[in-house]
Amino acid sequence: MASAPSPRTTVKRLPKRGVYDAPAIAAILDEALACHVGFVVEGQPYVIPTIHGRSGDRLYLHGSAASRMLRALSGGIPACVTATLIDGLVMARSAFHHSMNYRSAVVLGTATLVEDPDEKMEALRVIVEHVSPGRWAEVRWPTPKELLATSVLGMSLEEASAKVRTGPPIDDAEDMDFACWAGVLPLGITAGAPIPDAACRPGFNPPEFRRPR
Amino acid sequence: MASAPSPRTTVKRLPKRGVYDAPAIAAILDEALACHVGFVVEGQPYVIPTIHGRSGDRLYLHGSAASRMLRALSGGIPACVTATLIDGLVMARSAFHHSMNYRSAVVLGTATLVEDPDEKMEALRVIVEHVSPGRWAEVRWPTPKELLATSVLGMSLEEASAKVRTGPPIDDAEDMDFACWAGVLPLGITAGAPIPDAACRPGFNPPEFRRPR
Repeated sequence: MASAPSPRTTVKRLPKRGVYDAPAIAAILDEALACHVGFVVEGQPYVIPTIHGRSGDRLYLHGSAASRMLRALSGGIPACVTATLIDGLVMARSAFHHSMNYRSAVVLGTATLVEDPDEKMEALRVIVEHVSPGRWAEVRWPTPKELLATSVLGMSLEEASAKVRTGPPIDDAEDMDFACWAGVLPLGITAGAPIPDAACRPGFNPPEFRRPR
Repeated sequence: MASAPSPRTTVKRLPKRGVYDAPAIAAILDEALACHVGFVVEGQPYVIPTIHGRSGDRLYLHGSAASRMLRALSGGIPACVTATLIDGLVMARSAFHHSMNYRSAVVLGTATLVEDPDEKMEALRVIVEHVSPGRWAEVRWPTPKELLATSVLGMSLEEASAKVRTGPPIDDAEDMDFACWAGVLPLGITAGAPIPDAACRPGFNPPEFRRPR
């Protein structure tokens, strides 16, 4: 993985928020449940949410073999995959200094179709385990027919960067006595009570909602 | 706002998930804390998270006047703004039928710089209120100097669509007796205890975390 930014991934605005070390970028990709994929068709950019998975320095995407996004990307066009975690609302004294605490990772590159059946099955395992660690061992695995109906794309994490904001609001000195609350409202994703489907067999525990931290 | 999809916003894959009515699209944009903006520079798509706000059929984005994204978009290039809410993990019996319950809105168009000072101030109010309803009335409003340092972009919601998945997993008939839990893990964003900053004045309540539903 990249240890230095490329000219295209260097964080230009607020450069102190730029993060380029591979483990930090991987951690953001792993914690984010989904990502947004950008690609261009006839000059128009499209940004589509999708589920991803990561294994080492490879990012995997998947979808129906009939999907417009998968077909476009597998043609080898430039892509951008961005994963964002919102950690809190930053409530400053001035409207101007309001912000969010967040961590986002941006991966640039070209996706390629994973055609090797073993790598394809492994990528699907990585994607399922990404969302729900331990789930792969519990479920019925893909059949050859399902594998044919699924496209898997792989992308290198070579050209990637992250941007991170943490901490309290930073107000101007002359606003420090302004009469309002100031601080951070921490935010996170939490799970509600699991909803078994109507035909769920008794005797099995629902998967826990777990993220790598 | 659009009442029928354009050829570019028609949901091609799983068309039953396509949603085109303007109030439903607006509701997704309003509930999402942030969006992802796609734009193209020198053939490379970029996808950048940012905070938005909506007023009627106008979507507003903002940022530093020095921001690369704001400068690129204000040149009138094609853009795509996507906002996604993840509502749950869909746990099927087969790996193949795992999914997420989600609502996503995709807006295509061209952003234009908001130069009228009144509309610019109103757009910033809309963005602050989008994230934290009621906050605008509590904080110190932008000065002329801050307005100059901030770029605001407006975008029409004319060409927009949404995609929504709800409900339980849909497994194949032959998998219904497979020995695992099946159902939905509902997910949502929740706030932790507010963290006042070190100089926060006493006597003020922190804003509640509230979303339109």
